[in-house]
Amino acid sequence: MQGKQKKQSAARVEVTPWDGLIHDVPGFRTASLHCGLKTAKEEPPDLALLYCEQPCAAAGVFTQNRVCAAPVTLCREHLKKSKHRARALIINAGCANACTGEQGKRDARTMAEWVAARALCKPEEVLVFSTGVIGHKLPMDKIEVGIERTVMFAKEQKITGDFARGIMTTDLVPKTAAAIVKIGGKPVHVAGVCKGSGMIAPNMATLLGVTVTDAAVAPAVLQAALADIADGTFNCTTVDGDTSTNDSFVFLASGLARNPPVTRVGGPGYDALRAGLYSVCDSLARQIAADGEGAKHLITVYVGGTRNDADARRIARTIAESPLVKTAIAGNDPNWGRILAAAGRAGVVFDPDEAALTVSGHELFRGGQPAGFDRAAVAAALKAPEVSVVLLAGDGPGRARLYTCDLTHGYVSINAEYHT
Amino acid sequence: MQGKQKKQSAARVEVTPWDGLIHDVPGFRTASLHCGLKTAKEEPPDLALLYCEQPCAAAGVFTQNRVCAAPVTLCREHLKKSKHRARALIINAGCANACTGEQGKRDARTMAEWVAARALCKPEEVLVFSTGVIGHKLPMDKIEVGIERTVMFAKEQKITGDFARGIMTTDLVPKTAAAIVKIGGKPVHVAGVCKGSGMIAPNMATLLGVTVTDAAVAPAVLQAALADIADGTFNCTTVDGDTSTNDSFVFLASGLARNPPVTRVGGPGYDALRAGLYSVCDSLARQIAADGEGAKHLITVYVGGTRNDADARRIARTIAESPLVKTAIAGNDPNWGRILAAAGRAGVVFDPDEAALTVSGHELFRGGQPAGFDRAAVAAALKAPEVSVVLLAGDGPGRARLYTCDLTHGYVSINAEYHT
Repeated sequence: MQGKQKKQSAARVEVTPWDGLIHDVPGFRTASLHCGLKTAKEEPPDLALLYCEQPCAAAGVFTQNRVCAAPVTLCREHLKKSKHRARALIINAGCANACTGEQGKRDARTMAEWVAARALCKPEEVLVFSTGVIGHKLPMDKIEVGIERTVMFAKEQKITGDFARGIMTTDLVPKTAAAIVKIGGKPVHVAGVCKGSGMIAPNMATLLGVTVTDAAVAPAVLQAALADIADGTFNCTTVDGDTSTNDSFVFLASGLARNPPVTRVGGPGYDALRAGLYSVCDSLARQIAADGEGAKHLITVYVGGTRNDADARRIARTIAESPLVKTAIAGNDPNWGRILAAAGRAGVVFDPDEAALTVSGHELFRGGQPAGFDRAAVAAALKAPEVSVVLLAGDGPGRARLYTCDLTHGYVSINAEYHT
Repeated sequence: MQGKQKKQSAARVEVTPWDGLIHDVPGFRTASLHCGLKTAKEEPPDLALLYCEQPCAAAGVFTQNRVCAAPVTLCREHLKKSKHRARALIINAGCANACTGEQGKRDARTMAEWVAARALCKPEEVLVFSTGVIGHKLPMDKIEVGIERTVMFAKEQKITGDFARGIMTTDLVPKTAAAIVKIGGKPVHVAGVCKGSGMIAPNMATLLGVTVTDAAVAPAVLQAALADIADGTFNCTTVDGDTSTNDSFVFLASGLARNPPVTRVGGPGYDALRAGLYSVCDSLARQIAADGEGAKHLITVYVGGTRNDADARRIARTIAESPLVKTAIAGNDPNWGRILAAAGRAGVVFDPDEAALTVSGHELFRGGQPAGFDRAAVAAALKAPEVSVVLLAGDGPGRARLYTCDLTHGYVSINAEYHT
């Protein structure tokens, strides 16, 4: 046991916070502009390009929704065909290109071809993300002009627009995160950006996200690290339980850090790479929950003491997606009965008499009945913008953590008044 | 095949609508009054007694929530101990007696004992339901006075108060249904009552419900019919996906109709009994969805064409519980993309290119892309108080039907402002 603990602490790596953006990572450029997909008068950016100065190792995770958008299918094909190499990622906001039939598939392919022709690479080295309304066709004339200009700007190294804003839909704030880790003594940069506010219950990825690094990494290792990290960060984030048709998250590595290449999972440098990626993805996942549609509270749900992690996650997700729990927290109400009732319907065997529930540091329930707590103090604690819910369901080794947000009038307004 | 069809049509029975209440069924009396659990100034009824003039056959289905209330545990014990016989059902609203530890268990037992002492029966012949806030202890002094008076009223055949109102919490309207069927030439009455508005996603039963009949039926047959019917009616109803800690539904039979006793499932009279019970439970389930907290639309979700019924039900439930689908319908918006996206994340294999979606009679999606539909006409159809969503996911034999309601500002107000 002690030997194992020592090994774990030896594997711990230092992650240095960094305020860089993805175009600050050696090997990457971005361009973002308004091409006419978003109709707001202030002409917000709605097309964003990430351009790689040289072929990058590329990894991707995508929605598990059976109804998946044309660009998702295309990305899967391209990663396979290119053997996990990429030169560019083009993202449009305002139209999801989902449920658009054969025309939608042709349009996604055409977007990749247009970028490839101008960036002088192969079409399969171009990835395509789309986000916005489902069921509408892309206005390809506007997209063509936009691609022409973004590729020109990126090649001329003119940083235009804000990449993180260019991919937003109902998001209120752009979401970025960055960190520096050392691999073989060389500093390696990791920076990411994502969007997502509603239809958020990612299954393998969030609505749209990209993380880049200058580390030298084998593509297979990049994919393994991404799948591992996405599972504990984005896949543990939920706004409304609605998994999108367009969830896509990619991780690109330029190799310009000149570190000894990371060539196998668990081999030299892997833990550092994983720690850097985790730090960035965890921050992005928190930002998504905090900016959930209509959110007034970021809620972190921890569940422990179950037989295994999967059981803990089932309970945590049921609590995090319970409309009654989410509205209680919107009302700053320590309604612990709703939290227990949600846990009890998660389909996991546990004994409520052995459970203990703590909300924002106050123990509310233990031994089958309410703990003696100060209602006014708990209600005051619930007014903070961040709330924690900690349920210990027994003495097993299982545990899980989920990010979510409350359910407010804002969510109903956004989604009842947002017309197709 | 033809033989089987004939057999089915021969088994069809006539169900005659009836406007009776449960105390109109021979053998049953009710009493309902305000004993002080609900604090509203108009002193609404909060204690209701169903009294059986003679021992009845009794069947019950209860919540599958791991966190289950003391009265639920007591009912399970009593049905077993009494060999499925009952003389009375006492129901209080305003306090769920859930998560109340050993004291809660003692209180539920005491309620049954008080009723038994006054109704001159065994404690195990008394069933107890509670509904209301979780985690509060019952004010037993008020309950004792209330039980004293309700039993007295019931024994004196003074119909006092309205049983259906006496069990309401956030319900806006009382919910009753009744029907008459013939068994062996004798008319048999079936009447039911239920409550439920939030924390509604019954799993084996609804929040609280009771159906009575004067049919002569063996207890085991009564239980089989109830479990079968509850599965297709109450268990196919959802307001917010939150299964309650107190869900309880019982079916009592006095035998006073003097029909040839129904002694086995599928035997003579069983189909008629089942049809009568189905008619009553189906009506009650619809009433629950229509009176869901904040509901402006009753939504019926039909899914067909899957490999089996379980797959169809998974898809139907995912659509019915999707916050994005529910808010779209609240906004009268034919946002079919959200319905398909919900279906796609249900964990069921189907091909969207083979699917067809029809909403309130208008086909919106077929062959992987939008059908040509008149948006204004569909939006107008969605203004009706009832909306249907029909998804054919393929050509398999599976099918399911779920009742639900939309997600409105009213739901958020009720649940963010309802304090514990």
